[in-house]
Amino acid sequence: MNPELIALDWGTSSLRAFLIARGEVLVQRHSHHGIQHLPQPGRAGFEQAFREIASDWLQDQADLPVFACGMVGSAQGWCEAPYVRCPADMKSLVNQSVYVDSGRGTKILIAPGVLFDHPDELPDVMRGEETQIAGALLMNSNWSAESCMVLPGTHSKWVKIKNGSITRYKTFMTGELFDVLCKHSILGRLMPSENDSADIDLEANFRAFKLGVTTAQRITPGALSHEIFATRTLGLTGHLPHTSLSEYLSGLLIGHELISGLAGAGDLQDVPLLMIGDSALCARYQNALTIIGSLEAIFLENSAPAGLWMLAKTAGLVSNSGTQP
Amino acid sequence: MNPELIALDWGTSSLRAFLIARGEVLVQRHSHHGIQHLPQPGRAGFEQAFREIASDWLQDQADLPVFACGMVGSAQGWCEAPYVRCPADMKSLVNQSVYVDSGRGTKILIAPGVLFDHPDELPDVMRGEETQIAGALLMNSNWSAESCMVLPGTHSKWVKIKNGSITRYKTFMTGELFDVLCKHSILGRLMPSENDSADIDLEANFRAFKLGVTTAQRITPGALSHEIFATRTLGLTGHLPHTSLSEYLSGLLIGHELISGLAGAGDLQDVPLLMIGDSALCARYQNALTIIGSLEAIFLENSAPAGLWMLAKTAGLVSNSGTQP
Repeated sequence: MNPELIALDWGTSSLRAFLIARGEVLVQRHSHHGIQHLPQPGRAGFEQAFREIASDWLQDQADLPVFACGMVGSAQGWCEAPYVRCPADMKSLVNQSVYVDSGRGTKILIAPGVLFDHPDELPDVMRGEETQIAGALLMNSNWSAESCMVLPGTHSKWVKIKNGSITRYKTFMTGELFDVLCKHSILGRLMPSENDSADIDLEANFRAFKLGVTTAQRITPGALSHEIFATRTLGLTGHLPHTSLSEYLSGLLIGHELISGLAGAGDLQDVPLLMIGDSALCARYQNALTIIGSLEAIFLENSAPAGLWMLAKTAGLVSNSGTQP
Repeated sequence: MNPELIALDWGTSSLRAFLIARGEVLVQRHSHHGIQHLPQPGRAGFEQAFREIASDWLQDQADLPVFACGMVGSAQGWCEAPYVRCPADMKSLVNQSVYVDSGRGTKILIAPGVLFDHPDELPDVMRGEETQIAGALLMNSNWSAESCMVLPGTHSKWVKIKNGSITRYKTFMTGELFDVLCKHSILGRLMPSENDSADIDLEANFRAFKLGVTTAQRITPGALSHEIFATRTLGLTGHLPHTSLSEYLSGLLIGHELISGLAGAGDLQDVPLLMIGDSALCARYQNALTIIGSLEAIFLENSAPAGLWMLAKTAGLVSNSGTQP
């Protein structure tokens, strides 16, 4: 099969490249040259990172189209692709994509992010997730009609889809909050360091995670910073072993996210709930969903290459053959 | 006036020493030798820090009693004074104080902390604040009958007092959460660095602070980590100037604390609400109280020396003369 597209998922801390034909990923590569870890500063850094990961793919086929998504299109990226406002469908994402010269003749099309900005609510931004969502929409037309998509991570997204458009969404800082609290606050002091090889007590860990989720589920307005502090006091008082304290904090923060995300998702009786992302993290979210109310989500692994393929097809960069990677 | 007591407020990052007679502070000293910044490790470090700050006071009067409170009595301190359980009155604090030898003949009495541990609620600990509370109780007997005391700070406390006892309390990690988010998360990236000498726009700052407080006041269960992320998106979208983003975050976190703290404080119509601590921080809390519901608190500066004097008197270390510093 002849390659038809080079797809780049270019975020803050990493760059993933996919060689695709008829929607199928032929080769996949990974580099640490995220936009904050370029081999040299500025435009030259982007050019070098791109050359290093994909130049041999272009050797035989110099006219291979290239489509990129993620922070590469931000104000700190290679070339800014301004946000599309909600409701954002796939067509508008393609229409507001921008071209950048790769420095070797090839042009790269960069997808924009999506902005939610409504006078009665807090504004929100995404960049990269819209392409994962495009990939998921390609897989099942029911999901395009109406669905709720959750993308857990550093900055988790809860996204409402209706009639093929991203109508609204919310970001939760769950993953980053967990990280900075474990690494930079007093809470980390009681937690064993990563080098400690203490036996893992799965039962104690699950009990701690569940306590975190059920604490969130009590819905005590305004109390999160008190509940976060309990990560320390539950350890000091011996209610939880020190090796399980991070599980309590994880359950607490995910639980709070679920309470708010589900409230915004509306009735999920007839609307599918999807989870897209790292499978271990998605499993953690599913555990919390089960504790909260026996809800079941549908899981998808990284759908960014599928989304890049779909957007490239919508942009007319590739033939209409194939369906999904 | 002859000195009657050396009082030590010995926390994690600093040591304050007060020379007191008849309840009046004659001399006050400060050192950076908190229990985590001792001049040398272990017992010898405590002995040296104490010698450096107070040995000349003991030269003429070797039998001057010494009373200490704070993290010096924790498991990581000079000598552990185990927690007193709620309800904790001043007598029980004194009864569970422990003596440690200063290394030069003088004995130092160290106050314990207070533990709240109830099966239906998250456990909580304080160490040092109980002494500030003792000082406040000394000032007005009505407050001893019933009051709500707020001690804003790194780990803010909301404390219920009834019949001279600390009956219950909650810690909120407000101050530390604010610090780690500004210093170690993505939110800090849009905030001007401390070296930037941008003009301060007081009106924009107050508008940002108010937006934070009113966002908390909306009471959207589980949404705090979304509201925290808005510190970034409000800047990215131009709704708030970058110089005011930290004010939004401050208002948001203090607002959440107030919502939960006030809910736990019960009816404040007949019960005084006191605020003890740094006056600039207390003023910030009062601003938030005013935005939320025109509540007025009574302010007290650091009441730790008064508390140490009162506890020393209850312990019989000093004469019954005098009232308060």
